[in-house]
Amino acid sequence: MTEKKNIVVLGGGTGSFMLLSALKAHGHNLTAIVSMADDGGSTGVLRDELGALPAGDIRQCLVALSESPKLRDLFSYRFDQGTFSGHSFGNIFLSTLEKMTGSFSEAVETASEVLRVDGRVLPATLDNVRLKMTWDDESVVLSGEHQIDADYFAHDPRTARLSLEPSAAPNPEAINAIQSADLVLVAPGDIYTSLGPLLVIEGIGEALQQTNATVAYVCNLVTKEGQTDGFNVEDHVSEIERFAGSACIDAVIYNEEQPSGELAERYKQEGAYIVQIGNSEEEHHYSLIAGNFIGQLAEPSARDTIPVTRSYIRHDGERLAAEVLKLV
Amino acid sequence: MTEKKNIVVLGGGTGSFMLLSALKAHGHNLTAIVSMADDGGSTGVLRDELGALPAGDIRQCLVALSESPKLRDLFSYRFDQGTFSGHSFGNIFLSTLEKMTGSFSEAVETASEVLRVDGRVLPATLDNVRLKMTWDDESVVLSGEHQIDADYFAHDPRTARLSLEPSAAPNPEAINAIQSADLVLVAPGDIYTSLGPLLVIEGIGEALQQTNATVAYVCNLVTKEGQTDGFNVEDHVSEIERFAGSACIDAVIYNEEQPSGELAERYKQEGAYIVQIGNSEEEHHYSLIAGNFIGQLAEPSARDTIPVTRSYIRHDGERLAAEVLKLV
Repeated sequence: MTEKKNIVVLGGGTGSFMLLSALKAHGHNLTAIVSMADDGGSTGVLRDELGALPAGDIRQCLVALSESPKLRDLFSYRFDQGTFSGHSFGNIFLSTLEKMTGSFSEAVETASEVLRVDGRVLPATLDNVRLKMTWDDESVVLSGEHQIDADYFAHDPRTARLSLEPSAAPNPEAINAIQSADLVLVAPGDIYTSLGPLLVIEGIGEALQQTNATVAYVCNLVTKEGQTDGFNVEDHVSEIERFAGSACIDAVIYNEEQPSGELAERYKQEGAYIVQIGNSEEEHHYSLIAGNFIGQLAEPSARDTIPVTRSYIRHDGERLAAEVLKLV
Repeated sequence: MTEKKNIVVLGGGTGSFMLLSALKAHGHNLTAIVSMADDGGSTGVLRDELGALPAGDIRQCLVALSESPKLRDLFSYRFDQGTFSGHSFGNIFLSTLEKMTGSFSEAVETASEVLRVDGRVLPATLDNVRLKMTWDDESVVLSGEHQIDADYFAHDPRTARLSLEPSAAPNPEAINAIQSADLVLVAPGDIYTSLGPLLVIEGIGEALQQTNATVAYVCNLVTKEGQTDGFNVEDHVSEIERFAGSACIDAVIYNEEQPSGELAERYKQEGAYIVQIGNSEEEHHYSLIAGNFIGQLAEPSARDTIPVTRSYIRHDGERLAAEVLKLV
């Protein structure tokens, strides 16, 4: 193969999982920097009950980079009965280790060893923070990632301020990884509850601005009902750069394929529409790369690492990876 | 070192943990054959809720033979708050793997890899069984290991029949291990709820009778209140051989040290008395080996792999190992 490159993937769980899984086969040095604002589901219960940092997105990235199929399945396993119902085993593993050692970093490191992770998974911050979304005059405040995620915004989110409480210091290793990267990918993900909370961490946007790496955003496939309805590709990029605090994006990879048949029907039921390109004649400070990236329809399963609700809206990882790797 | 010997340790969790931990340093091939009737505590909940086989004793043996201090701690970790309160992490690990793969053997094997176990841990049976204790005319029946363990016997247990329901087939690997052993140790443990349920598995007693290995019983340090009050060393051996169905014991290692000070006080509070030798003038079909084997007073901790209630009554593993190894 050609020279090993340092590729950093920024995001939450689902989008990063897809990108990391697809890139893994190509033999580069992969680092995942993971959003740390999740507070719903299994992760939320572990945060509330054990005071643990959010494990779910980290787990998905670890699983993506794991070389052990058996342990990958184990970490992704979600209980459907009894005391543990709804919990993912990997989340329990990470939270227990954190509670035992008092260090989330150490927990992630040990889990990486156990899972034989080829690459690195770094929490974007090690501070225990909650997400807050505030509109202009502070008259509207949404608190908590889980609540915001479920909300239908009554006001334009583009006028909202996204913050972490208390304010979060970046994980120094994450900053180093961005600085020494050849390519940084912002994975597709929820703008206000996954990518935003990562990008507003102080120092992350600055590192993206200053790095010599190409910074590319793999644009979301579809809009999110009640939150980004009608957003085009450029709108997504604008919000990402707003949260990062600078015009840091060098390239945007977006899908121009239209879903058909059953897939189109499923999308529609969810109020999810393919993100369209805006005025492609217009001048942008980033390059635009179009392709056909809609993945196969996949049914969720108990072992599935992708959150069940949106599991059928997927990028085709392989086609995406081929496109992405042209950037290094 | 001298030639590697095959040493098999039969028992439940606590006694086997102590013996395996002490023998580990001596570089022999160690195999634990583990009693599978436990249905209390964390193990009981996992059995009831997930239909899992009992994990607790297996976990203790895995931890004893693990080469990874960090994962040993993790597996022994017991939650003290929230949804998981009372559960041991290792039990959850084993039961999840079993549920996921449908095979307890595979779960134990994967856990052995993860924990870097030096040796083998074998469930005595892979059948899902419950313990039953029945007195002569069937007028008294005690059901379930946990219930029996907590019971003060109203009738002489030496007249009781111990059985597993449904009847259990032995794990063929356990039989093989006994047959190819140089030394088989019956670990100290509860006669009616730990050792008994292992020895009554069809084929185990026969294998102990037929093996060329020396079969030695490391006699319990103390009597169990309400169950074995007044039992001397020979009474313990009699019961063990009754359950095994043959005069299979070649040697008995027992303690003749008396506890003193705080330790004596603690023993007394628990109604636990040092097991005494009977009539040592008498002829036995087994050799009797006496020594001073009382361990240090140790306080239980959350990470402790020894059940908390009896954690201060311990053998001194090192002195015991030195004595035991004279038999190979």
